[in-house]
Amino acid sequence: MTLVEKILAARAGLIEVSPGQFINVNVDLVMAHDLTASIAIRQFKELGAKNVFDPNKVALVPDHFVPTKDIASAEVNKNLREFAREQQIIYFECGQKSGIEHVILPEKGLVLPGDVVVGADSHTCTYGAVGAFSTGMGSTDIAVAMATGEIWLKVPPTIKFVYSGQPGPWIGGKDLILHTIGQIGVDGALYSVMEFTGSVIDQLTMDDRFTMANMAIEAGAKAGVFAVDEKTLEYVNARARRPFEVYASDPDAEYAQVITYDLSEMEPQVSCPHSPENTVPVSQTAGVKIDQAVIGSCTNGRLKDMAEAAQVLKGRQVHPSLRCIIIPGSQEVYLAALREGFIETFIEAGAAVSTPTCGPCVGGHTGVLAAGERCISTTNRNFVGRMGSPEAEVYLASPAVAAASAVAGEIINPEEVVR
Amino acid sequence: MTLVEKILAARAGLIEVSPGQFINVNVDLVMAHDLTASIAIRQFKELGAKNVFDPNKVALVPDHFVPTKDIASAEVNKNLREFAREQQIIYFECGQKSGIEHVILPEKGLVLPGDVVVGADSHTCTYGAVGAFSTGMGSTDIAVAMATGEIWLKVPPTIKFVYSGQPGPWIGGKDLILHTIGQIGVDGALYSVMEFTGSVIDQLTMDDRFTMANMAIEAGAKAGVFAVDEKTLEYVNARARRPFEVYASDPDAEYAQVITYDLSEMEPQVSCPHSPENTVPVSQTAGVKIDQAVIGSCTNGRLKDMAEAAQVLKGRQVHPSLRCIIIPGSQEVYLAALREGFIETFIEAGAAVSTPTCGPCVGGHTGVLAAGERCISTTNRNFVGRMGSPEAEVYLASPAVAAASAVAGEIINPEEVVR
Repeated sequence: MTLVEKILAARAGLIEVSPGQFINVNVDLVMAHDLTASIAIRQFKELGAKNVFDPNKVALVPDHFVPTKDIASAEVNKNLREFAREQQIIYFECGQKSGIEHVILPEKGLVLPGDVVVGADSHTCTYGAVGAFSTGMGSTDIAVAMATGEIWLKVPPTIKFVYSGQPGPWIGGKDLILHTIGQIGVDGALYSVMEFTGSVIDQLTMDDRFTMANMAIEAGAKAGVFAVDEKTLEYVNARARRPFEVYASDPDAEYAQVITYDLSEMEPQVSCPHSPENTVPVSQTAGVKIDQAVIGSCTNGRLKDMAEAAQVLKGRQVHPSLRCIIIPGSQEVYLAALREGFIETFIEAGAAVSTPTCGPCVGGHTGVLAAGERCISTTNRNFVGRMGSPEAEVYLASPAVAAASAVAGEIINPEEVVR
Repeated sequence: MTLVEKILAARAGLIEVSPGQFINVNVDLVMAHDLTASIAIRQFKELGAKNVFDPNKVALVPDHFVPTKDIASAEVNKNLREFAREQQIIYFECGQKSGIEHVILPEKGLVLPGDVVVGADSHTCTYGAVGAFSTGMGSTDIAVAMATGEIWLKVPPTIKFVYSGQPGPWIGGKDLILHTIGQIGVDGALYSVMEFTGSVIDQLTMDDRFTMANMAIEAGAKAGVFAVDEKTLEYVNARARRPFEVYASDPDAEYAQVITYDLSEMEPQVSCPHSPENTVPVSQTAGVKIDQAVIGSCTNGRLKDMAEAAQVLKGRQVHPSLRCIIIPGSQEVYLAALREGFIETFIEAGAAVSTPTCGPCVGGHTGVLAAGERCISTTNRNFVGRMGSPEAEVYLASPAVAAASAVAGEIINPEEVVR
């Protein structure tokens, strides 16, 4: 069996599962945020449920519209807060050890290897980075999971991705996943698990792995996973407050497909408007003028991302024609970045540093685009209207490319800026 | 003549002016922001004006809805940016040496002693702290000033306020001005100049003086001014890039009224909902539970305010039931606060630190209130609905009182928290 099949079998109480099989699975964590929790809470009440199945396994994270951007978002947050107090569940108050859900849940040790995690957010697949099976679901499914601690699903087939070669400078998880989506398309892994393997993956930091797992959904995948290795254990052991089980794919595990990439000659990657699959090497977009650069989000708001941006921005200035908005993914990331001197570098460079929030990624706030504006962003989606006006354009890239472009005023290879 | 009468006479090209007289005055700076500039620009064009009277004397500051909170604010900012580029006027791009207008214009040496400054914002009176005459006007008046460099006005009478005594700990400019407005009411200085004098004023920091001048409008005043002293000169000499003239009230200047306060027994002050004149000693509001604390704004977003908040929050935690939102008033304040360790203290304490913006003060974003919520805020207005829901309540106070209340979860004298 594959890693994910083993997790699902264990959580379904079965010895074996295989792709296509419908199973009932116990979940280790159920999550919703300020855009989805209100619907889940209403459904939860309509089900006649009185209490969540386990207060320690249900988390609400206001992150999309925090600090509250208007009366409507303030009312939504109040609703979440009151439900959280009433049910005594996990709740992350704005400012208080809080941040973007997919950054803080692993950070606080709430998702661990072998877990099944469901969330009312499509990027819930992020937790595959720690060897968990995690996936996004609709608010109604989440309401049922909150009440019962169970979900049903069809066991997904697994596609194995093997990354080999010696990537050049400034290549990270974002480049790998943008390249992959560019190759297979936004439905290239539809309802499948993307299992990321190979010598390049072994070298990746945990933060790069979170970035890759996070964007599995952009290829249509149900989940994106990584085998647990020394790096994973170092990460989770520092955070776990409960036991966990490590599963690994069998050597003879059956994969729906095996796809191999040699990254030796790869440049930093950029996904052009209006789809993540429109990936090209950065040289093909060089010179495209931009109005805004955004560095942050559940995709690239972690410490490695801040470090990369700081390395580019150190001693340089954001181009006068644009706004560079940098959003640490959590209070923990913010504090670590501050202590490393990155925040000072950002302010000195003329970047706006925001409190942790999803911000402009979903067109929420903190950098929404006007018609005709062009943005380079480390976020995960560049759909029409995603970050504001339907007449705006979003290019997706790594923090290094976004920061270098912020300096140049146009899309550029970081190598051209940092020599 | 008084200080203001002398400035107005000089800028009107007259030897003498007296209260009630209508005069035409040359202005040294015209300002508008993202809530008001669009109207001013439209009016400017409708006047048939081609160019502003002097590009170095017109400034646009996007600060209310930055980083942009929605498509509408993004379109507004784009409009301002394009007009600024076309007219080659002063423009503060988000993140780039930017911040809240009334913090950055003095900070960048754009307002100096003896200046006449008009802005399409009621708190333009802030610059009286450096011995300028500055006042808020409607967008149409501002359009005319942008085109002609002149305004007409009726010379206001001056009321002299004399503060004496030895104020206790944690008493600053905010307490003085809240107390004053509490005493004279929100129309107590209608269309008058408030001239702040006395031994207590001599001891005040520049940042405290900005706070006081800023809130002169909350007593209905046309302006609030301070005599230029050593502190003023130290502040402006470090920033000025053009000559300026220092005016002082004559010993025999005629005042409409002289009002004296002895502050020896004064406690920190709090203005209760829903008017700045509802001022009481903090002890009378002690124990009022709060949902949010806001520290920042054009009133209290300067370095001394950050220092005061940090002194209270250092080694302490924001109460788990509330959000504490701290907003440095400019990138310069942010950087200085960071280097002093204040930002680290805020994050460690569990506060959300925002990029410089007006934010929740005008219910814009970054902490808008829901129905039934109560906020203690260092901002300048607690009108019904000012920070969000008309069913929310805002208490105005100093950064020390707001920070202490954030720790306690209820309004409290800082002395009770910092012992």
